[in-house]
Amino acid sequence: MPDIAKPDVPVILLSHRAPVTFDREGDQRTASRGAGGLVSALMGLAAGLENSVWVCAASSDEDRKVVEQYGDKGSAAVEVSLFPDAGLVDEMDAEQGRQTTTLRMLAIDPVQHEQFYGQISNPLLWFVQHGLYGRASEPDLGRQEHDAFSHGYVAVNEAFADAVAGEVEARGGRALVMLHDYHFYLVAARVRERCPDVTMSHFVHIPWPGPNEWTILPPDMRDPILHGLLGNDVVAFHTERFARNFLLCVQELLGYSVNWGDLTVEIGGRTVAARHYPISIQTEALEELAASDQVAEHRQVLTERFLEGDRQLVLRVDRTDPSKNIVRGFKAFDTLLTDHPELKDRVVFFAMLQPSRQDVPQYQQYISAIGAVVAEVNARHGGHGWEPIQLRMEDDFALAVAAYQICDVLVVNAIADGMNLVAKEAVLVNQRSGVLALSENTGAHQELGSVAVRLYPFDIQQQADAMYEALTMPAKDRADRLRAAADIVRRNDVGKWLDAQLADLEHKLPAR
Amino acid sequence: MPDIAKPDVPVILLSHRAPVTFDREGDQRTASRGAGGLVSALMGLAAGLENSVWVCAASSDEDRKVVEQYGDKGSAAVEVSLFPDAGLVDEMDAEQGRQTTTLRMLAIDPVQHEQFYGQISNPLLWFVQHGLYGRASEPDLGRQEHDAFSHGYVAVNEAFADAVAGEVEARGGRALVMLHDYHFYLVAARVRERCPDVTMSHFVHIPWPGPNEWTILPPDMRDPILHGLLGNDVVAFHTERFARNFLLCVQELLGYSVNWGDLTVEIGGRTVAARHYPISIQTEALEELAASDQVAEHRQVLTERFLEGDRQLVLRVDRTDPSKNIVRGFKAFDTLLTDHPELKDRVVFFAMLQPSRQDVPQYQQYISAIGAVVAEVNARHGGHGWEPIQLRMEDDFALAVAAYQICDVLVVNAIADGMNLVAKEAVLVNQRSGVLALSENTGAHQELGSVAVRLYPFDIQQQADAMYEALTMPAKDRADRLRAAADIVRRNDVGKWLDAQLADLEHKLPAR
Repeated sequence: MPDIAKPDVPVILLSHRAPVTFDREGDQRTASRGAGGLVSALMGLAAGLENSVWVCAASSDEDRKVVEQYGDKGSAAVEVSLFPDAGLVDEMDAEQGRQTTTLRMLAIDPVQHEQFYGQISNPLLWFVQHGLYGRASEPDLGRQEHDAFSHGYVAVNEAFADAVAGEVEARGGRALVMLHDYHFYLVAARVRERCPDVTMSHFVHIPWPGPNEWTILPPDMRDPILHGLLGNDVVAFHTERFARNFLLCVQELLGYSVNWGDLTVEIGGRTVAARHYPISIQTEALEELAASDQVAEHRQVLTERFLEGDRQLVLRVDRTDPSKNIVRGFKAFDTLLTDHPELKDRVVFFAMLQPSRQDVPQYQQYISAIGAVVAEVNARHGGHGWEPIQLRMEDDFALAVAAYQICDVLVVNAIADGMNLVAKEAVLVNQRSGVLALSENTGAHQELGSVAVRLYPFDIQQQADAMYEALTMPAKDRADRLRAAADIVRRNDVGKWLDAQLADLEHKLPAR
Repeated sequence: MPDIAKPDVPVILLSHRAPVTFDREGDQRTASRGAGGLVSALMGLAAGLENSVWVCAASSDEDRKVVEQYGDKGSAAVEVSLFPDAGLVDEMDAEQGRQTTTLRMLAIDPVQHEQFYGQISNPLLWFVQHGLYGRASEPDLGRQEHDAFSHGYVAVNEAFADAVAGEVEARGGRALVMLHDYHFYLVAARVRERCPDVTMSHFVHIPWPGPNEWTILPPDMRDPILHGLLGNDVVAFHTERFARNFLLCVQELLGYSVNWGDLTVEIGGRTVAARHYPISIQTEALEELAASDQVAEHRQVLTERFLEGDRQLVLRVDRTDPSKNIVRGFKAFDTLLTDHPELKDRVVFFAMLQPSRQDVPQYQQYISAIGAVVAEVNARHGGHGWEPIQLRMEDDFALAVAAYQICDVLVVNAIADGMNLVAKEAVLVNQRSGVLALSENTGAHQELGSVAVRLYPFDIQQQADAMYEALTMPAKDRADRLRAAADIVRRNDVGKWLDAQLADLEHKLPAR
């Protein structure tokens, strides 16, 4: 865990995903630490804080059982261990040196949760914020979406706001509240009403587009979202462009006057600041994993499979989300092989893809489109035992780390991406002077763009040309760029991300 | 023609479409005045100016014949009459009182013109600027698009820039150059190089989105577009939002520092201003047409057809462009009839649609989608001699004016629209206290939003509710709103639009 200057007031965290989730094997309850960049990042803060609490949703069936067992009315506060092992402290053997935190888990009515999560958060907000709708024909917002918003998104946000406000009040009203992501845009305004003296921030981990894109939502959705966020002292994003876009929305859609000099807006006597803090990774933990035997074994297998002779490896690691631009990446590889037939049999594109949100039709269709283009490219160019594109539909982080280490090119060509941690992970551990080919539309591009080969995500030809540039770059250039990229990531790990936020928020804390 | 304070320097106009186009009937050359809001608006300026010229493209076969006959190397300057009758002055009988202007017509190589017009201007720039691409899968920019840009768009822009610069030089270098629309973004920078002392504006008649949307184009397309426009003294749009979005692009995509106080940017010692001037219509000419016998006859036919008993008429008049949001308008009408069955047999939606750009696949598909939804809605709700939606695929302005006069609701629900003149035309001539239902995403909304029923173009339910509100609004409210809307249009006719631009540009003219 990174060292962070812990604030001297109680901290209330809110995220949809929990840092610990429960499961059942036979009659035994099991626990595992939450995955994902956000939860990992916050664990460093939460673990060991005193008198603090992490509010989250009960997701699994076993999570709900824990809430039933320990709580009341769909809500339970439980003490959990995060390190070295995850679990309910109550059910674990006494042991020294555990880092524990208090979870407030809310079990939401499943129908309501589906409206909140499956209809509004994903796909509606996700698609709007990543600019994925083809506006000529989608979305068609009707009674169903309005119902899902008011009975799902609004209601669930109110329930979480009430839980957060309750935790603040239980601590005498003086607390630092840190809200997270697109599930909870309405929470801050409601918490602010009950707890006017709280210091509160909301971190938006996905892109924030300009007013044009937000007009996809009618005012009875977008206005509460903006007003909700304006309940905070700080609204935080990964890049300055997102922060500015947020204030543009406040100006153009709500009519407030923005102070563009310091990126603030005055609302009812309070100052709300839009800020940006690029999230990062836990560099030490990743370097430790990269040095493990498990990764070494994977590395050996992958090396034998992909790097025979002078072969080169192009890699991507992504969820199968349309925002990741997987299909165009393969089309660019197709163009690369057409333009440079000398690369045939000498380069493989290994794509580790984690199937994602398969209950959403657009995601199902996207998997089909991926399969279709892979088949086409392999049929057109492959043969004689050489398969140009090799898919692996699996979520195996140790395997991904091994692949990071041995790739020649990592392709991150996202249409839009709040940050993209894959780029940061790969450059930290790569051992082969691998080149990062990075979309200009990722948050990571702000930090790593100058040492990456830049990708323009809608331009197939440019991506093909960029892959060629990366594959044929002189060894010294490759090594220099990689070293510079790894330095940038090492200097800006997730501890720095948290520290910068806490430093800004401490100025906002009322004097004791 | 509106009265305009004519500038006392030569004026060079540039638009793709010509104010006069030629055709052939048998062995006779015929001429007709150009249609479309832009050309009509500029004719008022051009007619009667001295020592001025209008540069435009030869479009028809007969236009090309005129260029061959009167010109050299694909370019001809001809003197044409605009009022009262259109034609080549050379071929017309001598007559007093004609308003004439000089046309410089360029005949562009058809292959190049197809790349310039059929691949880059439409659909690429049109789709980017109206936000119509579903970015998960379109566009795929490849070698073909890059070729079309460099060999088509760039080359044609250079040809027109050279023609404009030649006209400026022929007038001693002191001239007012007014460039128009998305076909010619690269012209100004090249003219500025040859004619540094020229005063120059470029009017963009379609929406200008923010930087997010412009990143659909790679830098080798978007940067020349922005640099091209920065060759002007004034870059003009219909709304302040578009002007601000342009400067955001200059700031974020080119890295220039913008003066947000007065919406300017300093480029190499010059000041470039982003300004907005909402275009309008020729109110007197429209009121004259509305009072004509031809329109009266149409009005009688339409009244008998649609307004029997207490029936009400919902109207739309549009090109079949996906940006016009025709399909969602019919879906909203479907929802209206489902929610309010009492309206069955009492309301008709008459849609006058002009087929548009049928060589572009998305436009072909959009016509199919229109036909599909109309058939569904009519099958679901119609019967007993009542057809809820009635389509007319025809471009007949006199018929449209008659329909404007007798409609109860005019629906303008565009996804994005630079201005939308249909809204202004209809409120000026309506005789039935018709209600304007107007998308917030049209330029016209800035002027007419406060007296219209507002439409949120992605929200089917809201549009259905808004149509219901409009159809059932008390008579006095309807009359008050219509009167207010007509007053706004009458006070801001196209003469005012031109005057405001000329006044701003005169400050930029070097002293004589």
